Amino acid sequence: MATHDSALAHTSTPVETVTCGPIYSSTKAYRSVDIPGADATTSGADATASGPADAASERATTMQVPVRRINLTDGTSFDAYDTSGPYTGYATAAECHDLALGLPRTRNDWTHPEPVPVSGNGAETSSSSSSSSSPSARTHQVGTDQIRTQLAWARAGLVTPEMRFVAAREGVDVEVVRAEVAAGRAVIPANHRHPESEPMIIGKRFATKINANIGNSAVTSSIAEEVEKMVWAIRWGADTIMDLSTGADIHATREWILRNSPVPVGTVPIYQALEKVGGDPAKLTWELYRDTVIEQCEQGVDYMTVHAGVLLRYVPLAAKRVTGIVSRGGSIMAAWCLAHHRESFLYTHFAELCEILAGYDVTFSLGDGLRPGSIADANDEAQFAELRTLGELTRVAKAHGVQVMIEGPGHVPMDKIVENVRLEEQWCDEAPFYTLGPLATDIAPGYDHITSAIGAARIAEAGTAMLCYVTPKEHLGLPNRDDVKTGVITYKIAAHSADLAKGHPRAQERDDALSTARFEFRWRDQFALSLDPDTAREFHDETLPAEPAKTAHFCSMCGPKFCSMRISQDIRDYAAEHGLDTVEAIEAGMAEKSTEFADAGGRVYLPISTN
Amino acid sequence: MATHDSALAHTSTPVETVTCGPIYSSTKAYRSVDIPGADATTSGADATASGPADAASERATTMQVPVRRINLTDGTSFDAYDTSGPYTGYATAAECHDLALGLPRTRNDWTHPEPVPVSGNGAETSSSSSSSSSPSARTHQVGTDQIRTQLAWARAGLVTPEMRFVAAREGVDVEVVRAEVAAGRAVIPANHRHPESEPMIIGKRFATKINANIGNSAVTSSIAEEVEKMVWAIRWGADTIMDLSTGADIHATREWILRNSPVPVGTVPIYQALEKVGGDPAKLTWELYRDTVIEQCEQGVDYMTVHAGVLLRYVPLAAKRVTGIVSRGGSIMAAWCLAHHRESFLYTHFAELCEILAGYDVTFSLGDGLRPGSIADANDEAQFAELRTLGELTRVAKAHGVQVMIEGPGHVPMDKIVENVRLEEQWCDEAPFYTLGPLATDIAPGYDHITSAIGAARIAEAGTAMLCYVTPKEHLGLPNRDDVKTGVITYKIAAHSADLAKGHPRAQERDDALSTARFEFRWRDQFALSLDPDTAREFHDETLPAEPAKTAHFCSMCGPKFCSMRISQDIRDYAAEHGLDTVEAIEAGMAEKSTEFADAGGRVYLPISTN
Repeated sequence: MATHDSALAHTSTPVETVTCGPIYSSTKAYRSVDIPGADATTSGADATASGPADAASERATTMQVPVRRINLTDGTSFDAYDTSGPYTGYATAAECHDLALGLPRTRNDWTHPEPVPVSGNGAETSSSSSSSSSPSARTHQVGTDQIRTQLAWARAGLVTPEMRFVAAREGVDVEVVRAEVAAGRAVIPANHRHPESEPMIIGKRFATKINANIGNSAVTSSIAEEVEKMVWAIRWGADTIMDLSTGADIHATREWILRNSPVPVGTVPIYQALEKVGGDPAKLTWELYRDTVIEQCEQGVDYMTVHAGVLLRYVPLAAKRVTGIVSRGGSIMAAWCLAHHRESFLYTHFAELCEILAGYDVTFSLGDGLRPGSIADANDEAQFAELRTLGELTRVAKAHGVQVMIEGPGHVPMDKIVENVRLEEQWCDEAPFYTLGPLATDIAPGYDHITSAIGAARIAEAGTAMLCYVTPKEHLGLPNRDDVKTGVITYKIAAHSADLAKGHPRAQERDDALSTARFEFRWRDQFALSLDPDTAREFHDETLPAEPAKTAHFCSMCGPKFCSMRISQDIRDYAAEHGLDTVEAIEAGMAEKSTEFADAGGRVYLPISTN
Repeated sequence: MATHDSALAHTSTPVETVTCGPIYSSTKAYRSVDIPGADATTSGADATASGPADAASERATTMQVPVRRINLTDGTSFDAYDTSGPYTGYATAAECHDLALGLPRTRNDWTHPEPVPVSGNGAETSSSSSSSSSPSARTHQVGTDQIRTQLAWARAGLVTPEMRFVAAREGVDVEVVRAEVAAGRAVIPANHRHPESEPMIIGKRFATKINANIGNSAVTSSIAEEVEKMVWAIRWGADTIMDLSTGADIHATREWILRNSPVPVGTVPIYQALEKVGGDPAKLTWELYRDTVIEQCEQGVDYMTVHAGVLLRYVPLAAKRVTGIVSRGGSIMAAWCLAHHRESFLYTHFAELCEILAGYDVTFSLGDGLRPGSIADANDEAQFAELRTLGELTRVAKAHGVQVMIEGPGHVPMDKIVENVRLEEQWCDEAPFYTLGPLATDIAPGYDHITSAIGAARIAEAGTAMLCYVTPKEHLGLPNRDDVKTGVITYKIAAHSADLAKGHPRAQERDDALSTARFEFRWRDQFALSLDPDTAREFHDETLPAEPAKTAHFCSMCGPKFCSMRISQDIRDYAAEHGLDTVEAIEAGMAEKSTEFADAGGRVYLPISTN
């Protein structure tokens, strides 16, 4: 596999170690997936995206798709979707790759299709009404350039290695992947400049994904902490991470993260742009912002939040709210619009932005700068006015061959959640919805991972494709390592609950495996199959620490005499042995059976001492 | 107020102290509510229910309805529904009443209506099909006795002090309370023998309630711990508690809890009955169970879980499940039915049970002994067969003038939750539904407060009246003090989220108050209005501990330069001052305004140092 020289070694705060080692009772495994046509001649297009060293490297004929293999005590195993990268494959931190060199640039070895015309074969024409300063595709030359984005390839009927990779991960046919990407209902955020990433897909047809936000702020935190947070977040299941750094060392922090991240990395470029002008929104310019975006595209950022829907005329709508504008990016742009009394440069220059992102296959995450920050402001005029504009921008982006997802709220009471999804689908042509929670109530700071998981599960069930996690520190402070884990696990719960409710084909397999282990008192397997085996085991040990308790046919809740599951197992065995396992048999009234049952030694009751 | 001698002082393990003292920035307050006709002659009926000492006591003319008054820094206050009893009114534990004497028997001083005929004026006749061993009301003399239950009084058009008390707590007209109780859509669990309780109502028309389970087990815990758990649980908002003790000292533990509990106490009498026969279900008899129920009625238990719907013919249905029978009570009764090959004595003697409970106004909580214990078993034949039987029993109980609620699952994926409520309403005549979660997935032991809060919020939105909490230790161990608090707060979140979604009239007031405080950077008020002020403050202090940070116009998330709320406030002020607060004003294109804005000193941007 290709490696590369890195600027990381020269930064002032090298990252020493990160969390490595297998997850409880699990081993890292890879399934080999063929890349058809990979032994053809080297793709010139691909070489464009990678460094000189990579251009000469051999084309890969197979891809290694990761799984976490959970090894069970009954000799079977369960393969779980795995986001954790090689870190869980190293036995110890000592085995870890050199973080200063970064992960292998695996995707550079894959053979990609040739560039295709920007509009592909299924390009849509923008049908939105254009305002005076509309960034409509019609005012800009589109369709003449040859580009290399998953969207353009999918529309051209071409299957990429990334599509095969995600099809294998999701357990679906690759044609489903291609069709969903072509329709704009799914995105594969994979910047050509982030070849270290393991491709993943975001779309309602697939498993619901979760994002974890990390990043330093003006107040606290270091590069080393942020890289460790990334590794820690993906260990527990984060499908993407966003680096929201606003303090010092933004560029270097991002470089360390990108070079070591096996998951797509998202950013909000306006944060870095604002740093460059000393924190004064009025001093922002299109040119400075554009250069910042290019800098981040070059680094390898996979998707970018752009608050291009915060229009000048929407600002007064937000002024009347209980909590005004709560999005940082949204408030920055609102301040800029008011200060200059001009339309947002993100909106007026949107077509140029599309051209830049198309060159790298960076995915838009159109930000909801006017999302509600309180129950009182949910589903209001400001929010939905912006959402309509995001729909307009979605069509422009797609016309440029750029992948798009749409960000959503925020704070929304449960009865108003589904409407958000329906309107997003209607106005934004079913672009993948990517929501922050939403929080179902405002009254529980300190527990907003929970208030938002309630909303997140609901909105994902309704069709949201990716959920941005919320940690217990939301509204109060910056998440530490424990908060990141709590946020990730909580959102895995919300996402999985939604997948069950949507009838996602393979979702229930893990529930069934865990519940069967529970019923059979395979405690270690119950821990191993859970989202957080360490905590499950720790909680069990708190009450019943002795080693025999791991195989005991009871637990601390009821004690040995009252265990319903144990009684239930005995009932099952007894019913089967005595022909009492059907309603008919029971109703036949075989009274003599009861005598047999008593004679059988009362196996329905537990012996007082077990193990 | 009446006090009483107590047997508590003579038990071997006196409870020394419990958690006392006000909640952050709150004071205990009471609203005085008149009892019309309270100066009439002493009610003989009331004297029947209370001890000799109480019979002579003076009738109260008013009731004191508790609220928690949250004092805000802007000079206003917010009154919150308060479950915590006098404990949060004592400045310190030293001020606490003598736990060995218990709380004042306040309800004994209230004047109640005279007894009324059991069927009231709206009694229903059981319309269910009766099986050979049906406990149908028709086979039993009903309607000749005079009884004193909230249901019978409500049906007779009579308003009780308890109804006035809960109307004041809920902020609704007392006639709404009476009508809902009369219709059987709401219950007021208030055993005459638990006069220490502050009445509360459970029904979908009212605020969603939560229950906290406590109780020792064969493995661990003591009386002192359990009393403290009760006080701790109600401090954070538990509306009722269930004592599920299965170990030693069941009777004494319950006595300590009841005499000191201002909230209704529920039990599962079969647990104590099973203790009396050494843990062998086959040795249970109707007579022994009946005596246990009477013992608990006499003590003052307010509602009892009775698994009378686990019929012999349903047992095989459960035997085929992934997780069989997971209800302790359900598995005990299934074992009894199989061992004797006879119909459950709870079912065949149900009418007698009704007569006993009617004598004390103890409320039935008809248990779902066949609830699903895994996603795979949700909404299956066993579960719904039992639910139909619970509907039959509901009609029998109501015909006896006994209040009824129905227990529900369990483990249910989100898409199957609403069906549970609709069938319960249809089959059980809208008796209040009381559910355990449900857990929306099986795969997160250690986080089942969260997996179940997702389901609980959903099922409450659909009409469930009370939610039984689940703690992080579910499936793994016994909850400690921290787990109890986490479970209670998590369920307050689920219940409140549902109340918001149902449009409960006063629910959003607290969200609005907190969000306004948040927007105005009144940090202390944000803490005070939150469900757990201590944790919110602690999390805030973790990142920004300095005292000035409590009034700072920014927080640690974005730091002083990027605070969206601060920018948003500046925008609001600026827009209002400059006539830019309407869409029309903006669209008029007043370009000169932008110059003014810049001249105004860039107030939209934050000063680098604040406070």
